[in-house]
Amino acid sequence: MEMEMVHGAKSRVFTRGLSGLRNLVVKLKEKCVGIAKNIKKIAKDDPRRVIHSLKMALALTLVSLFYFVRPLYEGFGVSGMWAVLTVVVVFEFSVGATISKGLNRGLATLTAGALGVGAQHLAVLFGTKGEPIVLGILVFLLASMSTFTRFVPSIKKRYDYGVLIFILTFSLVAVSGYRVDVILVLAYQRLSTIVVGGATCMIVSIFICPVWAGEDLHNLIAGNLEKLAKFMEGFGEDYFTFPDNDKISMNSKKDGKSYLQSHKSVLASKTNEENLANFARWEPCHGQFRLRHPWKQYVKVGALARQCAYHIETLCGFINTEAKVPMEFRRKIKDSCTKMSIESSKALRAMASSIEKMAHPKQVVMHLENSKQAAKELENVLKTMLYGPEDIIALVPDATVASILVNIITCVEKISEAVHELANVAHFKEKIEATVSPEPTKHTAKLHRGIVNPMYDDGDRGEVDYVEVIVCDQKPQKIGNCIEGEIRVDNKCSNNVNNSTVISPPSIITCT
Amino acid sequence: MEMEMVHGAKSRVFTRGLSGLRNLVVKLKEKCVGIAKNIKKIAKDDPRRVIHSLKMALALTLVSLFYFVRPLYEGFGVSGMWAVLTVVVVFEFSVGATISKGLNRGLATLTAGALGVGAQHLAVLFGTKGEPIVLGILVFLLASMSTFTRFVPSIKKRYDYGVLIFILTFSLVAVSGYRVDVILVLAYQRLSTIVVGGATCMIVSIFICPVWAGEDLHNLIAGNLEKLAKFMEGFGEDYFTFPDNDKISMNSKKDGKSYLQSHKSVLASKTNEENLANFARWEPCHGQFRLRHPWKQYVKVGALARQCAYHIETLCGFINTEAKVPMEFRRKIKDSCTKMSIESSKALRAMASSIEKMAHPKQVVMHLENSKQAAKELENVLKTMLYGPEDIIALVPDATVASILVNIITCVEKISEAVHELANVAHFKEKIEATVSPEPTKHTAKLHRGIVNPMYDDGDRGEVDYVEVIVCDQKPQKIGNCIEGEIRVDNKCSNNVNNSTVISPPSIITCT
Repeated sequence: MEMEMVHGAKSRVFTRGLSGLRNLVVKLKEKCVGIAKNIKKIAKDDPRRVIHSLKMALALTLVSLFYFVRPLYEGFGVSGMWAVLTVVVVFEFSVGATISKGLNRGLATLTAGALGVGAQHLAVLFGTKGEPIVLGILVFLLASMSTFTRFVPSIKKRYDYGVLIFILTFSLVAVSGYRVDVILVLAYQRLSTIVVGGATCMIVSIFICPVWAGEDLHNLIAGNLEKLAKFMEGFGEDYFTFPDNDKISMNSKKDGKSYLQSHKSVLASKTNEENLANFARWEPCHGQFRLRHPWKQYVKVGALARQCAYHIETLCGFINTEAKVPMEFRRKIKDSCTKMSIESSKALRAMASSIEKMAHPKQVVMHLENSKQAAKELENVLKTMLYGPEDIIALVPDATVASILVNIITCVEKISEAVHELANVAHFKEKIEATVSPEPTKHTAKLHRGIVNPMYDDGDRGEVDYVEVIVCDQKPQKIGNCIEGEIRVDNKCSNNVNNSTVISPPSIITCT
Repeated sequence: MEMEMVHGAKSRVFTRGLSGLRNLVVKLKEKCVGIAKNIKKIAKDDPRRVIHSLKMALALTLVSLFYFVRPLYEGFGVSGMWAVLTVVVVFEFSVGATISKGLNRGLATLTAGALGVGAQHLAVLFGTKGEPIVLGILVFLLASMSTFTRFVPSIKKRYDYGVLIFILTFSLVAVSGYRVDVILVLAYQRLSTIVVGGATCMIVSIFICPVWAGEDLHNLIAGNLEKLAKFMEGFGEDYFTFPDNDKISMNSKKDGKSYLQSHKSVLASKTNEENLANFARWEPCHGQFRLRHPWKQYVKVGALARQCAYHIETLCGFINTEAKVPMEFRRKIKDSCTKMSIESSKALRAMASSIEKMAHPKQVVMHLENSKQAAKELENVLKTMLYGPEDIIALVPDATVASILVNIITCVEKISEAVHELANVAHFKEKIEATVSPEPTKHTAKLHRGIVNPMYDDGDRGEVDYVEVIVCDQKPQKIGNCIEGEIRVDNKCSNNVNNSTVISPPSIITCT
């Protein structure tokens, strides 16, 4: 009987232990699956991260092997480790950051090394007792002054790492206690290994799937404008839509609210934009970008886009306060407000597309004019309405929305000015972008449109069924014979015609 | 004659050269003065920068001397330079950042060193030909995996530097090609010099004029709330002020507009707040802050304050659009709108003061209630007004301002909830702050105030001239016998009474 009880207790303990172990295994498995999913997501969000990791490992392995087979290059000795060290600290995600760190490290090592040798020469003059004191004082002075310069914004932005390496190298050389001839050999070894490490980094960074900070900044700014456009479009379509059937509207409203999040990342992209602009300045010309591409102007556009995002964030506060609003008032201002949102969305999207394709933003001004026109229409609508005292309190939220919309248009106008300036200083192509919105015909409002009788400057007359007249918002540059008021067949502008319109060859463009 | 001309030409050249030189000297002098002024400004803006530079130089000089007089510690040999290297890269502005980097460096060196020795053991098994290949593969695998982990946000936040040093040390040890017994000696030397360098940094950082990231974060958040309060106060006083005399009003308006800039820095403080919170977690207890002070909650308050700043930024857009607004409408909504601004300003200031003094925010709820009351008053005012069709369009800007003000109050309420949570989790003192605004009596509106007949739970009846009744905003904690509805003489709550009111002893508090 007792034996049985003991046996039962033992088996219970065993079963409990087993189930505990099973739970632990299950939990561990869940944790591992969670981590794996997280890693997969990080890799999927930006596959360049995986490539960067492999590139970094490649550069390090190359330099390590150089160090490992060092007996072949006996000259370098232990200094070979500086190559490994350089690769680890210099290799960064973008080409610009890698070049910036590599050049900073190389130049700082060179100057600080020379100064360090000078300091030793000076210190030797003070005899064996005075030497450490003089060197100590020199290190103290140089380190304190250099550290302070790291607080100067212009130095912090571009040369922070260089100053760090400057302090490091100077201290190392000054207090190494070696004789000067030994130091020179060491300095040569160290510099050449740093050059090997830095060059390996730069070559791998530039020639194997390069990540250009400039291109990232370019895409980030275009993407941010696109996000603002997405919000304005979603807002215009959603806020002024009236439910026919409650159930359907509830569902569509729920799905339609995704646009509410699109501008959030714009609010917090300041640091990212500034970092990318700093790195981009170090990059050589690549793709469509020249050496001195106006990266600062991108930061300016980004700042104005953020300003617009602030207004949008405030607008968000009024989207869910619809309960008390009389639909009648909203119905009356619907047309003009929708037009204001949709047109400013189109202007933003045209700017995004213009930056993306590096083409002059031609349709922006038209969309802006349309949205301003809508603002005026709203004013007229408001002027002709009649209100009872009870209405006022109820229409305040909608009036606020309209009012903020007007301010957003002002913001978009400022962005447009900055984008035009960018297009000028960055020499964007003089090209009208093909499509500015996914539904090019739905809301588009051309300023003038019609059939005109073509005139040919070479006297020849072809068969023309249809002519698209595009009223340029800017004075067109003279391309060949295509000047103001003239019409030309087969001129270079023929590529610039909006894809959405059917044009029979030969295509013709009028610039007014 | 010719001689004279030549002489004249020479003297002209000389004079021109002299004046050119003089210009150059003047320009150089101006440049130098400019730089000096800039440096002086940087130092004046935050004198801790100068102290930090001196501290850094001190730590470096101490370690350099240790390296310089290395013959005394012959054991360390060339490894002494790791101490110098460690100081330069580990010494950061705040204690938290220094500790974070120091610990990261130490632990990463330790683990990577051990793994590196293991890798060498493994590689030796593959013979002299296989060794470099196996080591190369190991370095490649470890470097690529470690580099990828640097993209994981939680690792990037706290262990980025550690992972870097991990890759560095592993590669150095693995490919050093030394025999294992030599490596162990080197590893001991390197680790001990890193410990010496790291310890020097931490000691200097903590014991000489320490800069605590936690304290900085604490002050930054309180300062940001104060800035928002400053805007709301300035806005309330400025926007609804009507000029008696044009000239005076112009001047006062110009001077008064300084508040328009106060919230701008709040908009862009996200990165700074998050960095400080990351560093603060590494800091030991200091001043009023425990080891596990809820720094995350500060970041939450900061994010909500930024949300409020977005609304304020939108509000700014309406401040200069006063030209078309009929003053009559503004005059009518003046009282309630001013009250809304001033009371939310007071609530914000009370929160700032509460965080600053680490005392429970007692008056915040009262000010919030007052501002909500003002919002209701505004609603009533709007309901009783009569409008012509012409008025509507003109009053839209002011209606928008009022509407955004209401949203700001909602924002302030959210901040208040977060600050109350902070006060709870950070165990703020149960004390009502002495003064919440420079003019404590001007706009204060108590919810209930009056003389009550005191009841004593011990049956004793004292002489009481005046009793302050404070309606608690939260269910009071049970302190001794002081529970809901009860009145007690000389209980512990007596310290909590607002200093601005005269209370004759014995003081009495009712908790409703």
